[in-house]
Formats: sequence, structure tokens, C-alpha cells
Amino acid sequence: MKIHVLSLFPDMFEGVFGSSILKKAQEKGAVELSVMDFRQFAVGKHNQVDDYPYGGGAGMVLKPEPFFSAVESLTEGRQKPRVILMDPQGERFSQAKAEELAEEEELILLCGHYEGYDERIRQHLVTDEISIGDFILTGGELAAMTIVDSVVRLLPGVLGNEDSPVKDSFSTGLLEHPHYTRPADFRGMKVPDVLLSGNHAMIDRWREEQSILRTFERRPDLLENAPLSDHQKKYLEQLKNQNS
Amino acid sequence: MKIHVLSLFPDMFEGVFGSSILKKAQEKGAVELSVMDFRQFAVGKHNQVDDYPYGGGAGMVLKPEPFFSAVESLTEGRQKPRVILMDPQGERFSQAKAEELAEEEELILLCGHYEGYDERIRQHLVTDEISIGDFILTGGELAAMTIVDSVVRLLPGVLGNEDSPVKDSFSTGLLEHPHYTRPADFRGMKVPDVLLSGNHAMIDRWREEQSILRTFERRPDLLENAPLSDHQKKYLEQLKNQNS
Repeated sequence: MKIHVLSLFPDMFEGVFGSSILKKAQEKGAVELSVMDFRQFAVGKHNQVDDYPYGGGAGMVLKPEPFFSAVESLTEGRQKPRVILMDPQGERFSQAKAEELAEEEELILLCGHYEGYDERIRQHLVTDEISIGDFILTGGELAAMTIVDSVVRLLPGVLGNEDSPVKDSFSTGLLEHPHYTRPADFRGMKVPDVLLSGNHAMIDRWREEQSILRTFERRPDLLENAPLSDHQKKYLEQLKNQNS
Repeated sequence: MKIHVLSLFPDMFEGVFGSSILKKAQEKGAVELSVMDFRQFAVGKHNQVDDYPYGGGAGMVLKPEPFFSAVESLTEGRQKPRVILMDPQGERFSQAKAEELAEEEELILLCGHYEGYDERIRQHLVTDEISIGDFILTGGELAAMTIVDSVVRLLPGVLGNEDSPVKDSFSTGLLEHPHYTRPADFRGMKVPDVLLSGNHAMIDRWREEQSILRTFERRPDLLENAPLSDHQKKYLEQLKNQNS
């Protein structure tokens, strides 16, 4: 897979793209990551990438030409891959979207910084607009890194067993049960007896219940679509009755 | 404000903490950012920060001691500030949460990587658990950077006028109207006439309507709580009637 990021602050990506799983994924050849400073496609004698908004108002707006030219420089003579605008107005990023993007051979991610986007970028250049959440960042760079990280870890061969999470939240549709490791007693805070019992049927049952309990307390919205075992269904009914 | 981040991958933060607004905010003295590698508080002869889960299962679990010791090294003899765990099971991060955290004098952010957390960290060390969304990252680092970026830009003196966004999405409770800048005609894609008219009453009206239209199409959930002008209420009624 190839992922190109267009940003005015390419240095921001160095630490994240050069560490840990993203570094290993590039070394293994699972992904090629490139960051292009689209200021090189600035226009006019002042090398502008932004300009004042038509109709007045505070702030600046990113001009269409630099983004169009930068994308065209990457896709010359080829079919355009998905071009994704980092934008708080976009579709909310999710694990399902990460899985969908991980199927693509190539992606282009566009990052604004401080400013708004000229609407023609949205309407005529991009195929997707994605937001990582209802909060304001100083630019799209952290959103792009977040998408890259969550997509690349799904690519074949990227996560070795040593890196795999205990169990991903969301992968079962429920939140994870609590985890404990040594010491069994840390300053008087103890590991639940069941986990030390060696009785694997009881441990599995405890974990199933804890997963339901946690999801019920924190994210009851997830319970609607999660596939539950018969035991989990009964346990959920008990919880609901206790709380009603 | 002081923000301490505890991570096993401190190099990941360099590009983001050393660029753009976060760099300027530190230079201006608005915030002190530090990243501590909590591996220095690893335990045992093998310098472990993680260990196998009690009760069996795949993956590793972060041990309690390194996080407890690292936090204590930062807060020795003082009242503990808010200690925030980066965790997909946590409360969803939002602009309201960013505004709340921007009121604090000090924050400590804990980042796991690959693994689960020993439950005692969650129950006895942290004051908050925050998730930036329903997707899986290889670690908490990008979540921590996201929180730092969105909080620091709210601190007094950090955003100069030159950096202010055209208008923040969410700040009015609605999505922003479209923005346009020069050229008025880019490859046949034209700026709407109203924005070139010089008639500011008409421009304001168009923007109010576009903001409603966009929110209606993309994020109707936001309309429930947004304060609307009389004109906006009427326009929204029209939209609803057209679509019903």
C-alpha cells in the first residue's frame, strides 16, 4: 500500500512515521509513506497557499490550485486513488472505516492547517472527507497520522504476535474485560481470585461477564449490535433488572 | 500550564511537539510540555514494563509499578493533578472536554502501546480515561498528541489572529458554511455570485443558510442543541418540508 500525505508541516510526521509499528511496516515493505509539502505548488509572485475569503470574514482560506496541482503531480496519467480531506465536517472515522481503507492500494490524505478549505477542493478534488472527532485541532496532520496508524496496523504482516493487543476493543463489538498481571498483590491492591484459580471455564465466564458489565456501564450503545453468547444475554438481563 | 506525557516511545512526540502552534506555545511560555519514558521505572532484573495476563490469553499487559512510580516521581509531595489514561474504553474526547482540560494547571497523560493496562492503573492511579474515537491505534501516543494540540490551542495567548481558523466548526453548534477564495474562476469552477456581490446582508444570509444546510445534510444531531436565528429556524423548516 502507498499513502501520500500533503501538508504544510511535513516535519510534524517524522517522529510518528519513524517509530514503532509504522517504522517497522515500512521496513517490511508493507507500506510506503510519503509526506509532500504542497507549498511547492503555491501560486503567484508571493507563493501563496491561502488567501482572504470572498465575502469577507476573519481567517484565511486554502486556495484550490496548490492541492489540485499536488494531487495531479502524484497521479499523473493514472487513475486517481481515493483522496481524503481531513476535516472536522467529514464522516466520523471508525474501525470499520479503517478496515475499508486498508483494502485500498493507494491513498492520498490532504491536511489543512489553521484555515478553511476552498469549497472547490471539497466538491471537485476529494473522494472522502473524514473527521476523527468533534474537536478542533490546529491542523489535519494529527488526524492524518491517526488514520495512517490505524490503517497500517491492519495490513497483512504488519503486526507480529508480539505486538498484538490483548484483545482489541470493538473487535468483538464489546469493550474488553479487565486485565491483570504480576504482582498479584501490589500495595494491597489485589488481582481477583478467579484469575489465579487455574479454572479456565470460570475465568472465561468471568471475562465474558466483565466484558458485558463494562460495556453496559460505559458504552451501552454497543450492546445493541454485539453478538452475545447465551450466558452473556442472561447476564445482561440481570444487570438491566438490577438497574431498573 | 504543564503537561507531562508518559510513553515508551518518546521520540514519536518530537515532530508534533516541535512544530507549528505547539512549538510557538512553548516558546511563548503558555505551556510546558514534557515526555517521559516510563521504561526507566521498569522492575525486576529484566527491566520489565509488561507481563503475561493472569488467567491466560494472548498479548501482554502493562504492569502497575512503572506507571505508579513515574506519576509519583512527577508529583512528589504535591497534590496529584488530573492523570488521564489514553484508552479506547474511555470517555469520548470532545471540544467541551478540551475546554474543560484547558482550565487545569497541570495534566499527566499516560500512553500504553500495543498492550492492555493492568486494571489497578485504571482503578487506583488515574482520574480520567479518554478515548479519541472508536478505532484502534498502535498506542496512546497519537491520542495524547491530539488532546495536547486541541487543549493548548485554547490557552490564552496561543493563537494569534493570523492563526485563527475562519470559524471553528462546533463553536456555533453548527457546521461551517462553505468558504471560497481567489481565483473566482478556477478551471471553470466558479465562486457563487452572492460572495462577489459586495452585499453583506445577502452574504450573511447565504452563509447562515449554508451552515444550516450543511449541518442538516451531514450532522443533523447537532441541530437539536444549536442556537438558531429566526431566519435559520425558518430555513430549517423549509429543508425539513422539502425532504419529507
